[in-house]
Amino acid sequence: MIKVVLLGTGRVSKHLFDAFTSSKDIEVKQVYGRSYKNLKPFSSSVKTTTQPHEIVAADIYIIAVSDDSISAVSQIVKNKKGLIVHTSGSTPMNALNNSMNKGVLYPLQTFSDHRKTELKEVPFCIETEFSKDYDLLEQLAFSISTKVYRIDSEQRQQLHLAAVFVNNFSNHLYYLGDTICNKANISFDILKPLILETAGKIETVTPFEAQTGPARRQDRGTIKRLEGLLSESIQKDIFTLLTKSIENTYDQKL
Amino acid sequence: MIKVVLLGTGRVSKHLFDAFTSSKDIEVKQVYGRSYKNLKPFSSSVKTTTQPHEIVAADIYIIAVSDDSISAVSQIVKNKKGLIVHTSGSTPMNALNNSMNKGVLYPLQTFSDHRKTELKEVPFCIETEFSKDYDLLEQLAFSISTKVYRIDSEQRQQLHLAAVFVNNFSNHLYYLGDTICNKANISFDILKPLILETAGKIETVTPFEAQTGPARRQDRGTIKRLEGLLSESIQKDIFTLLTKSIENTYDQKL
Repeated sequence: MIKVVLLGTGRVSKHLFDAFTSSKDIEVKQVYGRSYKNLKPFSSSVKTTTQPHEIVAADIYIIAVSDDSISAVSQIVKNKKGLIVHTSGSTPMNALNNSMNKGVLYPLQTFSDHRKTELKEVPFCIETEFSKDYDLLEQLAFSISTKVYRIDSEQRQQLHLAAVFVNNFSNHLYYLGDTICNKANISFDILKPLILETAGKIETVTPFEAQTGPARRQDRGTIKRLEGLLSESIQKDIFTLLTKSIENTYDQKL
Repeated sequence: MIKVVLLGTGRVSKHLFDAFTSSKDIEVKQVYGRSYKNLKPFSSSVKTTTQPHEIVAADIYIIAVSDDSISAVSQIVKNKKGLIVHTSGSTPMNALNNSMNKGVLYPLQTFSDHRKTELKEVPFCIETEFSKDYDLLEQLAFSISTKVYRIDSEQRQQLHLAAVFVNNFSNHLYYLGDTICNKANISFDILKPLILETAGKIETVTPFEAQTGPARRQDRGTIKRLEGLLSESIQKDIFTLLTKSIENTYDQKL
């Protein structure tokens, strides 16, 4: 039984808490938060505290707070044994300002309040300062997910960058598609199956192979015509730049 | 029973043929193709021909060929009654160079040989030159799909443009994410659940609401740091431009 203290009361903390309490291998000893109001969703099923000096003993202290607060929150865990980890994709392990053994437990997923996320399918990227702590953190990760990867701080930065491309930027392209539909009185619903199929393809085909469209075919006539339909200059710039990047990709490689 | 002649032997034609033969409301009378080799996948279950003068009578002639060939193929259907339609997203209805009544039957989906596409979920965008032909084409579309939309030629152009953003461009962002992972010796598999979740979100949340990440939060520190990790100049340009577009979107609207 791995004993855990959770520090933080946001989305990531709630998702971890739910998964830990469903696992027979993990015991959440306590949740720490800044206010009793924030702790309310937890307090019916676990001990909670707003007082740093009341933090109890555990095997792993998990800091699930905003990136800016990781360093400060790590300092309130004092005179404790065990491992201290944060859950951020974009923060170095050394941001943990604490004399304990350090690590990172980064769930690579977009958590929203609107949709239930199945944590079992979420890849956990883990790293520890000392190799002797790795097994414990790995055991914790495997208790809630089937996908656990060893990723060091440098790789984690690159992974975060890649995630910005495939998640933040793709979603913005959906938004631009939505905008174009709106202007033409077309329901965005028409595009939804296409969006799901485009994403679904990556399970069986590489994105390099899956590419279709006028830029891939170097069909200048269609490219020019579509470009001419765009009135907003930043949308035109995005169209031109991504078209060029696709053309370059297949110029080089075919 | 709607009688159909299919002209063309590519992916779209094959998908339509399979769907039509499974429908009790449609009878495929014939498939026309340029060569017997191309017609082979059809010839065991339907009459086929390579000779324009052998084309038989039908209610609807469906041209499923590359955009460039639509006009030429439409000219080989001669002295026939009925409706002639093409299946292209980016070609005006009037590209049909034929004296028959015209229409468009555009399945908005990306068809690949690698994955089976469930046509029932594919949105069909339909248009006819004369309103009296609309019901027939709608009946045909509903016989193979649950999603049928009336979309005129002008809207279809905008829809095609929007599809380039959400499909072609998103897939290219997946490719860029894959490239970043490769360079850092990270398996692209780690990103797959994130890609699927990002796409899946649109079923319950608008892309405007779903946006997350440093550009949405206007977190300049993280943006600068991630930008600094990119070495290829076109990737950096894409990062900068999409970040700016996201920032603009939420500057204006929040």
